[in-house]
Amino acid sequence: MKQYQHPTADQITLPCVLHALSDPVRLNYVQCLAQSECEQSCGAIPTPVAKSTMSHHIRVLREAGIIHIRPFGTQSLISLRSDELEKKFPGVLTSVLKAVKSTDVIEQV
Amino acid sequence: MKQYQHPTADQITLPCVLHALSDPVRLNYVQCLAQSECEQSCGAIPTPVAKSTMSHHIRVLREAGIIHIRPFGTQSLISLRSDELEKKFPGVLTSVLKAVKSTDVIEQV
Repeated sequence: MKQYQHPTADQITLPCVLHALSDPVRLNYVQCLAQSECEQSCGAIPTPVAKSTMSHHIRVLREAGIIHIRPFGTQSLISLRSDELEKKFPGVLTSVLKAVKSTDVIEQV
Repeated sequence: MKQYQHPTADQITLPCVLHALSDPVRLNYVQCLAQSECEQSCGAIPTPVAKSTMSHHIRVLREAGIIHIRPFGTQSLISLRSDELEKKFPGVLTSVLKAVKSTDVIEQV
């Protein structure tokens, strides 16, 4: 079963988090994950890019500490690390997600 | 006198703002500007990079709509567009700057 490396809370840095959130596709994906409020399989969220491109985006989000990936049988279940991020950088993810709602990020994807 | 182009509030996008803030040098610079609470000349804030590199960083911040540059004689005075950003993306810049304070971004520069 594939194992994924995740940064610990201590290893998560603000520049990396902001960089990971600075792409419209990733921002849209994180927004969908936040709305679903539970783990999602990789393919459950529709994305406007090729599967290989999405794999890259998901890796960037995982390496930045924004998402957690849990292998489950043949699937990979993805969840937001919202609690850890909120504890480390209070208000950052929350305000970014609120700002996504009020803008046309999704349309730009 | 050199004139600078700035995006209007409508042209400012969340991905561009997050990208501009995702670099430790730029984050540190924005933090210093926020602390100074008034216009600063280009050279007033000490930076750990070469002048040409800093010019690049300042251009990225200007083009993202985070800072405003006003020519003043032979100088360029720089200020944060905090009010416009707060209006467009409530809490984003504020929470990011608070997070900078509590992390080691400056040490990473």
